[in-house]
Amino acid sequence: MSRSDGPLPPGSVIGILGGGQLGRMLALAAARLGMKTHIYCPDPQSPAFDVTPRKTVADYDDEPSLAAFAAAVDVVTYEFENVPAAAAAFLAKRKPLRPGANALAVAQDRLAEKAFLTINRIPVAPFAAIPDAGVLASELREIGLPAVLKTTRLGYDGKGQRTIRKRSDAAAAFAALAPKPLVLEAFVAFEKEISVVVARGLDGKTAAFEPAENTHRDHILKESRVPARVSSKTASKAVETATAIAKALDYVGVLGVEFFLSKRGKLLVNEIAPRVHNSGHWTEAVSITDQFEQHIRAICGWPLGDPSRLADVVMENLIGDEVLAVPQALKRRSRPQLYGKAESRPGRKMGHVNRIGAKTGPK
Amino acid sequence: MSRSDGPLPPGSVIGILGGGQLGRMLALAAARLGMKTHIYCPDPQSPAFDVTPRKTVADYDDEPSLAAFAAAVDVVTYEFENVPAAAAAFLAKRKPLRPGANALAVAQDRLAEKAFLTINRIPVAPFAAIPDAGVLASELREIGLPAVLKTTRLGYDGKGQRTIRKRSDAAAAFAALAPKPLVLEAFVAFEKEISVVVARGLDGKTAAFEPAENTHRDHILKESRVPARVSSKTASKAVETATAIAKALDYVGVLGVEFFLSKRGKLLVNEIAPRVHNSGHWTEAVSITDQFEQHIRAICGWPLGDPSRLADVVMENLIGDEVLAVPQALKRRSRPQLYGKAESRPGRKMGHVNRIGAKTGPK
Repeated sequence: MSRSDGPLPPGSVIGILGGGQLGRMLALAAARLGMKTHIYCPDPQSPAFDVTPRKTVADYDDEPSLAAFAAAVDVVTYEFENVPAAAAAFLAKRKPLRPGANALAVAQDRLAEKAFLTINRIPVAPFAAIPDAGVLASELREIGLPAVLKTTRLGYDGKGQRTIRKRSDAAAAFAALAPKPLVLEAFVAFEKEISVVVARGLDGKTAAFEPAENTHRDHILKESRVPARVSSKTASKAVETATAIAKALDYVGVLGVEFFLSKRGKLLVNEIAPRVHNSGHWTEAVSITDQFEQHIRAICGWPLGDPSRLADVVMENLIGDEVLAVPQALKRRSRPQLYGKAESRPGRKMGHVNRIGAKTGPK
Repeated sequence: MSRSDGPLPPGSVIGILGGGQLGRMLALAAARLGMKTHIYCPDPQSPAFDVTPRKTVADYDDEPSLAAFAAAVDVVTYEFENVPAAAAAFLAKRKPLRPGANALAVAQDRLAEKAFLTINRIPVAPFAAIPDAGVLASELREIGLPAVLKTTRLGYDGKGQRTIRKRSDAAAAFAALAPKPLVLEAFVAFEKEISVVVARGLDGKTAAFEPAENTHRDHILKESRVPARVSSKTASKAVETATAIAKALDYVGVLGVEFFLSKRGKLLVNEIAPRVHNSGHWTEAVSITDQFEQHIRAICGWPLGDPSRLADVVMENLIGDEVLAVPQALKRRSRPQLYGKAESRPGRKMGHVNRIGAKTGPK
């Protein structure tokens, strides 16, 4: 096997686009496997810069910096789905980009994502592309109320979306988000939100973590609980679906898939994230191989690790000033992870704490 | 509370003397708590340099470098017991040194260590200071055969010692090790070697991990197994003894205590290490708080974490070329930690693998 096809040996350099907490935790996991990491991020205050001596501070469209970065690393990965397509293509010509540009293209655009899922017979909420206010009006009749109007790109944590509860809300919602490309989605009256983090290796093998049950506050993930309080049939279906998505994308790495579980017990995919996922941070405390190590194993061509879980767990995000309660308020059987961000701001994810229980089976 | 007495806040800088695998794993644990680390080591190839941007490459007697290091950090710790006393004193005047100089002085010198333990009524094998060949001859009559002649300082992994099996071995053993200060120890026909890693916080509270059962090969630790196959009475006694040592030293941080368990069931302290310990690497895979995080918590004045264990475990050191079997030979339910050393040499610790079982109680 050539170096680019076989497993990367320990001592190889992993290039990571993005220097936030996900890049930081990927770098820590890579170190555990004897790998070096090089972080590329435009923000000189990136928390991931504190865990490796190798960094590039440059914009994602800075081709000389991208070229030097590619020359300094053995494989390229990323911590966020909004890597510009041009940067991804530029890097992929020079070094293996894992996950590949295809996964980025699908995950960056809500419309492309929903089309991809639909083509692959994976259930999503009813949706429609919204080029203008007239189509919005007609699609609201088709899809029904309430519905959610979203930008197709760059939305996260509730940003870039408006809920339309009555027909007269439509004009204001459209005005707030246009002229960006928009998608209208049926509002899902869900009973629970669950998510699955699945890994796929370079050899095509897959390994999924158990589903987590997620609770949001102000559109930001607050808590993930494992095992999720869903039927074993629902849990299996979620794992099967996430695995099918990874295969359909010919994916390499760790993929996060968020689901709505409707009151009638139907699973709909809400969105996919081609990266380690906040709702998988619980794995770090109780899984034999956690999502960060699993991603590094996958992109390095290593055999995937064992996703088995040793205990029940509730992961709680520390948002804004909640981080100030650490260390004094740390409870027994809890394992903190702080992101090393210099400044806490409202809504900013500053760290998380895993609270570890006894082991029970899937609920 | 002043900054030096209260808990150090996240974002503080921990100075670590020594850049080997222990310093590296301490730095990784510090990052999980949102701390920054600065590694001080004379070896420019130190593996710990790969996990932080902050480093000093200088000798331990380089006072300008030590002064600049002290100015750049909030607390100083170390990964090895042979920190020169002058460097420790120099740094302790400028920043909190944890564990303190007292622990270093005791642990650096086998004779001081045994005297300290004896004064504290902690059982050790019979021993005697050996200033010359005449005393060696008389002490061999007193202590009996076989016995082990050791340098009082700087021995590790079987280096700096000779076993004397018959009286006629004595002259050669003395010649090989003199003129260094020497100590003669009775040879303990032990049934098992066990060890306890205990932490003591700045508030005086202690938390011990369960004893590990250790197997050596060529004088190098090969395997640590938890739970140790000893009676619960022996396990409790070992934990009590380690805790008593930490208290007697007014210790802050993690301390490793190695024991011989004699065939008659008696526990003798073999040696103590004022640092995280190879026989505590299992904690990283199965403990809620591992020894590295526990050490960082202690030296930062944080409340100690929970040393509870989630599963049974066998930690195996990867020595020399054994590391080359990674990743291909990684087994299910195993968690690797590689140290990122550029070159594998015979006898060099390159990494370890924790093999994780189901949970059972102490044996």
